[in-house]
Order: sequence, then C-alpha cells, then structure tokens
Amino acid sequence: MKAVYYQGSGTFTVGRGEILPPGEGEVRLEVAYCGLCGTDLHIAHGSMDDRVRPPQVIGHEMAGTVAETGTGVTGLRPGDKVVVRPLDSRGQTAADKGISHICRNLKFLGIDTPGAFQHSWTVPAFTIHRLPPDTDLKLAALTEPLAVACHDVRRGRVAAGETVVVIGGGPIGVMIALVARSRGAQVIVSEVNASRLAFIRRLGLTVIDPGQADLAQAVEEVTRGAGADVVFEVSGSAGGAMTMTKLAGLRGRIVVVAIFSAPPAVNLFDVFWKELEVLGTRVYEPEDYENAIDFVIGGRLPLADLITSVEPLERLPAALEELERNPSAMKILVDCRA
Amino acid sequence: MKAVYYQGSGTFTVGRGEILPPGEGEVRLEVAYCGLCGTDLHIAHGSMDDRVRPPQVIGHEMAGTVAETGTGVTGLRPGDKVVVRPLDSRGQTAADKGISHICRNLKFLGIDTPGAFQHSWTVPAFTIHRLPPDTDLKLAALTEPLAVACHDVRRGRVAAGETVVVIGGGPIGVMIALVARSRGAQVIVSEVNASRLAFIRRLGLTVIDPGQADLAQAVEEVTRGAGADVVFEVSGSAGGAMTMTKLAGLRGRIVVVAIFSAPPAVNLFDVFWKELEVLGTRVYEPEDYENAIDFVIGGRLPLADLITSVEPLERLPAALEELERNPSAMKILVDCRA
Repeated sequence: MKAVYYQGSGTFTVGRGEILPPGEGEVRLEVAYCGLCGTDLHIAHGSMDDRVRPPQVIGHEMAGTVAETGTGVTGLRPGDKVVVRPLDSRGQTAADKGISHICRNLKFLGIDTPGAFQHSWTVPAFTIHRLPPDTDLKLAALTEPLAVACHDVRRGRVAAGETVVVIGGGPIGVMIALVARSRGAQVIVSEVNASRLAFIRRLGLTVIDPGQADLAQAVEEVTRGAGADVVFEVSGSAGGAMTMTKLAGLRGRIVVVAIFSAPPAVNLFDVFWKELEVLGTRVYEPEDYENAIDFVIGGRLPLADLITSVEPLERLPAALEELERNPSAMKILVDCRA
Repeated sequence: MKAVYYQGSGTFTVGRGEILPPGEGEVRLEVAYCGLCGTDLHIAHGSMDDRVRPPQVIGHEMAGTVAETGTGVTGLRPGDKVVVRPLDSRGQTAADKGISHICRNLKFLGIDTPGAFQHSWTVPAFTIHRLPPDTDLKLAALTEPLAVACHDVRRGRVAAGETVVVIGGGPIGVMIALVARSRGAQVIVSEVNASRLAFIRRLGLTVIDPGQADLAQAVEEVTRGAGADVVFEVSGSAGGAMTMTKLAGLRGRIVVVAIFSAPPAVNLFDVFWKELEVLGTRVYEPEDYENAIDFVIGGRLPLADLITSVEPLERLPAALEELERNPSAMKILVDCRA
C-alpha cells in the first residue's frame, strides 16, 4: 500500500501509506483514482508551503470505495462507491454569515490536511457523496473539477439560449463550456494555445484564437450586437481581465474563475456603463457536487475525452511535470489502487 | 426669458431663451430650479464636446411647472409641479434586451439634446413625473441626483441591519449614505477632504478619513470581523478601487458608482476568494424617480442641508467654478425663473 509524500521545496517521495482506522464520524476509503489539479502544481512549485506540512500526502480529486466506517456513521457501507467533497467547514463562525463553503477557517482536504494520493484515505463522513454501484470510477475522479464548473455556471445563472464566452480553455474552462452548453447556451471558448485549440475543436465546441481573429467582433456578430450574456474569465491573464468587460452586453454577468496572483487593470467604466455584474466564484456547494455526479453517471458530456492519461502512483512527480509541459493535457489521473 | 448657452471649449454666454411650442406628445415646462451636476462640469471642461452641440442649453436636474401640453398628452395640466427624468430611450433596439434606461441609443436630455438652464423647456411627456401641489421646488430639484442614489442603493440590495461603506463623500456619495441609512443600514462614509468631513459629520453620518484612521480595521471592528455587506465606490480613485474589495465580507456587494476615466487595478483575487459581487450602476429607472420623490416630499432626509446656494441664471459660469473650487459645495441650484 503506497503513498506519495510531498517533502517541501517541490520534491516528492514514494513511500508506504498509513492505514488510519476511522474515528467517530469518519470513514476510511480505498482510493481508486485521483486527478492532478493546478493546485497540486502550485504545491509542487513550493508556492503553498505555508499551508502544506511536509511530509504530507496531497491530492483532492478522488473517487474510490468505502473500506470501513467509524461509529455514528450511517448510510454508508463497505464497497460503496464514493467521491469526497474536500471541504471541512467545521471552523466557521458567525462572521461567515452561513456561507460555509468559503468560510474563513475552511480546511481544504489534500492541502490543509492529508490528501488522496494514497490507497487508504480516512476522511470525515460529511465530505462523502455516494455514487451508483455501476459508476466508472475513472470518470468519477472528474467530479471535483466538474463541481467547480457546475458552481461557476450556477453563479453565472447561465440559461438556455444565452451566449456564453469562456476566456481560457484549460480543464476548468473546457468543463465550464461543456456544462454551459448542456444548459442550452451557445458557447464560444477563447484560447491561444494551438494544441488546446485543436483539442477543444474536437469536442465540438466553438473556439476562437484571439491572436488570430477578432473575438469581440465575433461575439458582436453572433449576438447581433447585444454582446455576451455571460463571460467566464478562466485565463488569469491581464488580457483576459481587460477583455471580459468588453465582451459582455448590457447587464451581462462576468464570472471570475481564475486565481489572479496580482490585481489586473479592470475597465470599471464598462462595468458602470453597461451595469455589468462581476461575480467571484470559488469551489462548490453540495448541490454542485450532486450536479457534477449527474453528469458523471448521465453520460451527457464527453468526459472520457478529458482524461489525458492514467498513471501509476509512483509516476506522480513525472505526471505533474507532464501537466506543466503539455498545455493540451486536460486531466491526468493517478491510479491509487496499488 | 433668459437661457445660458454652452458655446464649446468651456465657454458660456447668457442669452435669450426660446419658447418652443409643445408638439404631439410634448410638454412645455417653466423651469423653477436646476441643479449643477458633475456632468455639467465635464461639459464646461470641453470633455463632452462630442455629445454637446454648441450653442446648446445644458442642465438636467430640474424642477418646475407645466406651462402647456401638446396634443395627445393626458394627465398633466398647466400649473402642475413636475420633475423630468431626462432619459429618452426611443432609440432602443432588440440588442438592448429591454434594458431601456441604459440602451445603446439613449439620449440624455441636457447633454444630447437641449437642457434646463432656461426658463422655458419643452420635453417629451414620458419624461415627466408629477409632484404634489405643495412640493418645495428647491428640494424637488434634488430629485435627479437622489434618484441616482436610490438606483445605486437598489442595485446594492441594501437591507436593514447591513453594514454599508461609501467611499467618497461628494454629493452622490452623501445621498447614497442617507438613502442607505433610511433603509436601516449602518453606514460609514470614507472621505479625505477636511471640509467635506466636517459637513458629513454635521449630517449625523459616521465618517472616516482613511488618511488618518485605518478604514479596514474600523469596518472589521464594527462588523465583528464579517466585513461590509455593501461597499459603494463613488470616489473614482485608484485607492478606492483597490480598497473596495478589501472592505467587503463574504459574498459582499460592491457597487461601482464612480465614472473611472482609466481602468484601475482591481483585486480580482479578493473577488474570487470571497465570492464578491461587483455591480455597475448607471442613472435610474422610473421607480427610482418615484422613490426619490417620496424622499423629497416625505421630509425624512436632511435634503435642505445639501443645498449649498441658489444662484441666478446669469451666474451659472461662476457657480460652475465655485462647484469645482469648493469640495464642500454639495448642490448649487440655479434659479431659472427669470
């Protein structure tokens, strides 16, 4: 039973995993697959060493089965297929006004506490969502990022018939585009990388390279001058931050998905002039997980196409490098069954 | 019967006003008072010469009486006290999605068409709101900026018991603070100018000079760590744009009232992290006018205190200079009865 430990300063080691018997209200899981996330890359870069405590197992995009349950846990049995919503809001206070999923003392499993790049993982029972018995656990490992996309689309109140622009065609941008399209929206993805452009086009999505074509003009044409109803800024780039207000029509919604490391210039005149609505969005709430699970089991989205490769646990460090090097790598899963 | 004409390049002349008989659907008014607005200052600076067509009468914050009505006009009689909502949305198209008050072809009376710094003013009947017979027309001349404030507070969904910060204590900022307070909110105004600080304090509002005290810490203390529910950015300053996201609590609302001439840096990380909502707001809708009129006739706000002086029409150019020079000048009215 293996585990991969982050040792700080960007280094990982493969070692022996621990089996932690579940305490009261806890469940011990056997992890089948766990996806690599941009956040894991940040950790690998040492950018989150103030939150991660080496040697620590990371990883939070998992799917697996119940191994054993602690006292007081009901509704779960060994063998049940499950995913984990890796948020622990037990530290919330009155100052959080009941907004628990982003409360100030939020602990993120796999960052602030041990994660899922190991075969045996013990977690609080309240983080668990059950899956139907015939669920494909590889697809189920996409639940967490898909729940991010579901939350983003819900924050943007995307409705059928609306025109949506997604700036940035990485894994989250593509999932937002797919979820928005499934809601009946007309979706345009903006992406500059050639291999991503080709990949997104193969998914049947409309994609524009703003370096090659005039994105704003394309949006004007498609909307007959009305502008986009919803714009998702997923690129985290200065260009994206400046473009987002330009693309939106009157009272358009702009959803800020990307994590901006420095405050970009934002055209607040556009915000005023068109009465725009700029909405921040972060992680997910339980209903977003339920929506994501519906997509995982419903087969309506081309989720299998998003899985770039499945790597053995010991290749995790190499897989992180691959994720960094290859822009068309969407989702790399790690097989944690060993 | 006098009128003041903007002659372009920042110059004004006093001349003879025209009496335009009302056409079909039009009403000829006798203007009693018309307030000076920051927009009039922009026009005086020559910054809006692409919209104003000299020689043109400007002015749009008026109150007066009906002189005569054109054919097809019902519900208005000579002598009726009225105010004008100076928006002509007849050019709206499908691309405006019914959002008429900020439609792309909006004409603003007093900017894109002749205004109210004259005794006789002929306008479309649909712009008129009637006032009760005993309304004080000086106070009624505050209806337009007050409707801006009502619209801003409505966009911000300010509710009783909420904590509101208004960044910038000019006329609109002060009116927003007063309207928000009347809705039961706890209001803090942030202002740097000493004479404005003193004026705002005399209105009984809590005001902080962010150069002298730690505004963010004050908001933290007042809200017991929760942060502000609503922040109004009315300063148009780079500092205000950077502070607004810091002051807001989880899912706080930020209302962008100011007109930013250049895109400022905005902390989109805060927007993401706290799931903030940044809302643009511009002019008003009919219900904002009705709310503003309720304040004018209801006597619940210290509106008379906001009237700095009443000047004769021929002193309009000097009054514009006074407005520019004196930061504690809130509302200067021009007496157009001559």
